[in-house]
Amino acid sequence: MAGTEVTNRQIIFKNYVVGWPKESDMELVTTTKKLELREGQKDVILKVLYLSCDPYQRGRMRNAVDSYIPPFTPGKPLDGYGVGKVVRSNDPDFKENDLVEGLVAWEEYSLGFKLSKIESDVVPVSYYLGALGMAGFTAYVGFFQVCEPKKGETIYVSAASGAVGQMVGQFAKLFGCHVVGSAGSAQKVDLLKNKFGYDEAFNYKEEPDLDAALKRHCPQGIDMYFENVGGKMLDAVLLNMKVHGRIAVCGMISQYNNEVHEPIYNLNITVKRRLKIQGFLQSDFIHLKPEFKKTVVEWFKEKKLEYVEDIADGLEKGPAALIGMLAGKNVGKQGIKVADF
Amino acid sequence: MAGTEVTNRQIIFKNYVVGWPKESDMELVTTTKKLELREGQKDVILKVLYLSCDPYQRGRMRNAVDSYIPPFTPGKPLDGYGVGKVVRSNDPDFKENDLVEGLVAWEEYSLGFKLSKIESDVVPVSYYLGALGMAGFTAYVGFFQVCEPKKGETIYVSAASGAVGQMVGQFAKLFGCHVVGSAGSAQKVDLLKNKFGYDEAFNYKEEPDLDAALKRHCPQGIDMYFENVGGKMLDAVLLNMKVHGRIAVCGMISQYNNEVHEPIYNLNITVKRRLKIQGFLQSDFIHLKPEFKKTVVEWFKEKKLEYVEDIADGLEKGPAALIGMLAGKNVGKQGIKVADF
Repeated sequence: MAGTEVTNRQIIFKNYVVGWPKESDMELVTTTKKLELREGQKDVILKVLYLSCDPYQRGRMRNAVDSYIPPFTPGKPLDGYGVGKVVRSNDPDFKENDLVEGLVAWEEYSLGFKLSKIESDVVPVSYYLGALGMAGFTAYVGFFQVCEPKKGETIYVSAASGAVGQMVGQFAKLFGCHVVGSAGSAQKVDLLKNKFGYDEAFNYKEEPDLDAALKRHCPQGIDMYFENVGGKMLDAVLLNMKVHGRIAVCGMISQYNNEVHEPIYNLNITVKRRLKIQGFLQSDFIHLKPEFKKTVVEWFKEKKLEYVEDIADGLEKGPAALIGMLAGKNVGKQGIKVADF
Repeated sequence: MAGTEVTNRQIIFKNYVVGWPKESDMELVTTTKKLELREGQKDVILKVLYLSCDPYQRGRMRNAVDSYIPPFTPGKPLDGYGVGKVVRSNDPDFKENDLVEGLVAWEEYSLGFKLSKIESDVVPVSYYLGALGMAGFTAYVGFFQVCEPKKGETIYVSAASGAVGQMVGQFAKLFGCHVVGSAGSAQKVDLLKNKFGYDEAFNYKEEPDLDAALKRHCPQGIDMYFENVGGKMLDAVLLNMKVHGRIAVCGMISQYNNEVHEPIYNLNITVKRRLKIQGFLQSDFIHLKPEFKKTVVEWFKEKKLEYVEDIADGLEKGPAALIGMLAGKNVGKQGIKVADF
């Protein structure tokens, strides 16, 4: 078995991208691969089952030297979070057929990094891309740690039905907050209200005046803003923040494909309202990961949480899925199914 | 004595101001006033000795309904922080000839509010407008509380020789930070380097590229930014903040006379650098005031601190002094001397 050769399709990153990425910036290639473990290395080879599409991956298409994560390498496969089944292992912590989550390349058979075993069958394994993966953990630390929530406060979430947003809204409801969200289609607004339990929701694309929309949906003002989009939305939110309000900056997806970012005019309000604007990455809170998994699995078991996914079927759909997610075409967490168990 | 009538010159606020205030937006009038205490009230009447010119007063010239402090009333004197001598008192805490600091109107004889006695003669009483007044306390809580400093970190201070900035820089040096400041003239830069002990200083008006200037003066990046000015400076600073940097937003004086604020383009960096941007007001930390006074008086006694003031001589100079301060014409803390002891 040691040298078994398999067909290994990959999605190759062709070159750095300026502006909106196109499908032709990536390429599906068919290669072969020997399922061989390197001697003296704790290698684990996975059969990849699911891949995650995340907004931070847009940043990795830029040749940026100062980011917290290196850019993709032109000519090599993309990589990111994924779920797989162990097919070869030199690592005593993992054995054949274990289901694991972690970092993998966008290919059918991949070395895995920073792996952990999926122990529970309470939720579908694909949830480890989102609800129980980086997105859910981002929501968890962003809400419970960065927002510093108090019961009864109002939280506003943009991109509220997305991989992160849907979890933030539900965590906030479970915690006892008044929860308001926005998204970019009637279908997503319906999910916010009727599936995720948001108290108020609106379609930002139908609001010519975002400040007025926020005043209508948050008439008492906003205590916490979970920032996923940036740009005009952030500027309008600033005007509606209450004294001592907190803005947890998770991302600014509306800006990722702009070479010059949209301007923000209302930052002066931070003084009189004593606002805290805090950018964060889930990786700075990694010590809370075990608590997060235990808590969230339990909440799913108790039927306290819902999760909506948008899974593209087949590795070849990866480039379109990733680009579509950046444009908000996905409904819920965007993933790619690469193979059956 | 009860009904003694005195000549009482006042500076009247004429009407709300759009754009840059002009001297003609204020008016010197000569009235008379009976030094009478209202029955059943804990009134204290002061002979005003010094008045403070502070940037927040520009905000009070705007008819804003949502500020933390009400606007000035057209037709009435301006008001603000000041130092005075008690001439009449119904309040058992204050007796005639006590020196006090607190809130007063811009006139020669004024009711005082939120007064405290000046107990120490370690520093000139005028310092209670600045170093030991609101400006010094703002510097104290902004640096020690909001910036969350660590020894050896780099702090950058804008408006660094101003009423607040000169204290921030000296507190940071005493604490063990590397301190960099900017100001708007060669004379001010000289003060930063040779009086306040800044490690690096530059004249921002001579820097066509603020980002390049910051890279030159803070080659390792900025851990803490004490923000006094806003606008282009803030945008350049954002690019130079280190991971986990903190921005304490004390004010944005460059924007106070703009009806539309200068845009900020670089906020997206808050995520990857995990920046905290925190607006604050000294009034939220009032429980630390006694500690502040005790500490700072002690530091002055030990000759560990310097303070530079720019005191206009005569109440009639008040309007020009206030407007000049908004334009950065002052060198050090801007005050107005109204009377001798």
